[in-house]
Amino acid sequence: MPAGEFALIARYFASAACAAAGEELALGIGDDCAILSLAAEQQLAVSTDTLNQGVHFPAGADPRLLAWRALGCTLSDLAAMGAKPVGFTLALSLPEADEAWLTAFAEGLNTAAQQYRVRLVGGDTTRGPLSLTLTVLGRVPSGMALKRSGAQVGDLLCVGGVLGQAAAALPWVLGERLPEAAAEGLLHRYWQPAPQLALGRALRGRATSAIDISDGLLADCGHLAKASNVLLEVDSARVPLDANAVALLGAEQAQACALRGGDDYRLAFTLPLRCLEGLQAEGYAVSVIGRVRSKQVGGALELLHNGRRETVTQGGYQHFQEPTDG
Amino acid sequence: MPAGEFALIARYFASAACAAAGEELALGIGDDCAILSLAAEQQLAVSTDTLNQGVHFPAGADPRLLAWRALGCTLSDLAAMGAKPVGFTLALSLPEADEAWLTAFAEGLNTAAQQYRVRLVGGDTTRGPLSLTLTVLGRVPSGMALKRSGAQVGDLLCVGGVLGQAAAALPWVLGERLPEAAAEGLLHRYWQPAPQLALGRALRGRATSAIDISDGLLADCGHLAKASNVLLEVDSARVPLDANAVALLGAEQAQACALRGGDDYRLAFTLPLRCLEGLQAEGYAVSVIGRVRSKQVGGALELLHNGRRETVTQGGYQHFQEPTDG
Repeated sequence: MPAGEFALIARYFASAACAAAGEELALGIGDDCAILSLAAEQQLAVSTDTLNQGVHFPAGADPRLLAWRALGCTLSDLAAMGAKPVGFTLALSLPEADEAWLTAFAEGLNTAAQQYRVRLVGGDTTRGPLSLTLTVLGRVPSGMALKRSGAQVGDLLCVGGVLGQAAAALPWVLGERLPEAAAEGLLHRYWQPAPQLALGRALRGRATSAIDISDGLLADCGHLAKASNVLLEVDSARVPLDANAVALLGAEQAQACALRGGDDYRLAFTLPLRCLEGLQAEGYAVSVIGRVRSKQVGGALELLHNGRRETVTQGGYQHFQEPTDG
Repeated sequence: MPAGEFALIARYFASAACAAAGEELALGIGDDCAILSLAAEQQLAVSTDTLNQGVHFPAGADPRLLAWRALGCTLSDLAAMGAKPVGFTLALSLPEADEAWLTAFAEGLNTAAQQYRVRLVGGDTTRGPLSLTLTVLGRVPSGMALKRSGAQVGDLLCVGGVLGQAAAALPWVLGERLPEAAAEGLLHRYWQPAPQLALGRALRGRATSAIDISDGLLADCGHLAKASNVLLEVDSARVPLDANAVALLGAEQAQACALRGGDDYRLAFTLPLRCLEGLQAEGYAVSVIGRVRSKQVGGALELLHNGRRETVTQGGYQHFQEPTDG
């Protein structure tokens, strides 16, 4: 395919509504770089995510949903820092310039970008196996970014919303189970993750640490414990589950999805007790699922599960003692 | 391959010297986002480039050179805006975690990043066909970014350095010609493009428009003419050629590489005559290759070539008249 078709695609994206200059975007698509203006006393948050066909999504995925999912996943990293989205770049590799596919993809991208009030500021469209790399740019008041480090002994460990939906949706995503109405909500969550951008901003000045749950609750709590050098305790019974996941898969499997499944794109964070009521009063669905038990160099994670206390290691679970205070 | 190996790779890059926090990088690799601090009165320049194996570089490319080339190409977009590099993200898709390949790649990336004083601030390492997407971030004093629009009637059309080297190197890059000493310099330019960052900054407040030559001189001058709504005139005899390219390929072919070959990563820009002497006195190798002849809505490009005047269209050359003033 001639390179010219890819130049056409680039112009196609440049004309999308979500690519219009304005506000913080001084110069949009069409020059060698985009130019962004940040307000005074703001820092810039940056994150990059890649989705490859056959690895991160199945072949034949609906391009509208794929666009939405790619943007949602990547924006979740901004949410975890308490940053407000400003713009994103899209690097899109395509095996061929399929107009129907591109039209649907661009529609999905435009809708999602408008929903999250973020602008497409640039990118590159090339020939290659189907792959998307998005780089998101956000702003956060100087010194106010939420980090993984910072959890304090005595803080509550909290999550926003319910967990495990995307992992519970996998049998339907992969076509292993026949479509059914009760799975629609799970599929929606898989394909259109809702990055908790408002919650992330509400956590500024309140949460002592935060992370987005993309690798699974326990894995990401492990990252948080390590970055903060604390021992975190998670009570599995307090992890909020999706009612449809429980109905479709059973409580045990739904809980496993919530603890170990990936792609939730919800926030986990540590919070002083005094800040909990305010957050809930503002309408955020925040659940307390554990606490910061003690300082521990290198971090550690313990799971209270079925009346036992287990140490969670990266490779799995290591049973070590009966609960002493649970 | 387990996802864990890719997490290891990510930590590998995080420990590279070029990923150290400091100066404008308030928070580096290891959290959900990097956090950058821009000085007051600065704008942010952003650009993304993808290199796919088999499309943008041949299979079996030296990973050290590949890293260098990817960073050099992408930084050239910052040069074209007059921006100073601050940081970049790397999205790397790899079919397998080949340690020797990764070590060499990281060495190349680290060396190039230190050479250009730019920090690796984040990224994503995933399984997939070999592909690199780099997003570069730079800063430029507010309102001073060089744009493609802005060329004024009477300005000189200039380029920095000599052109056509990367295109002239292609027979050796692709293994179509046997290695020879005289081709080394061309190969070096192909694999280690030198983005003209200092020249770009020197052009701030002087050049009226600028672009980096990645698609080929005539194609990119066409883009500049279109963005500025002017008629540009290029005199092929004034386009500076590489002596080795002339020796190896002959003058005609070396000139064709300089006019139409891609991957130069040199700057083309329009400059008021009064600014030329100052630039040259500062030591920049600037050649005047043409001028802005007149305003023209939609832009146009004319080439003075072998005593004839030709209109250059995107699809090729359209002969239309004898030169009247060349």
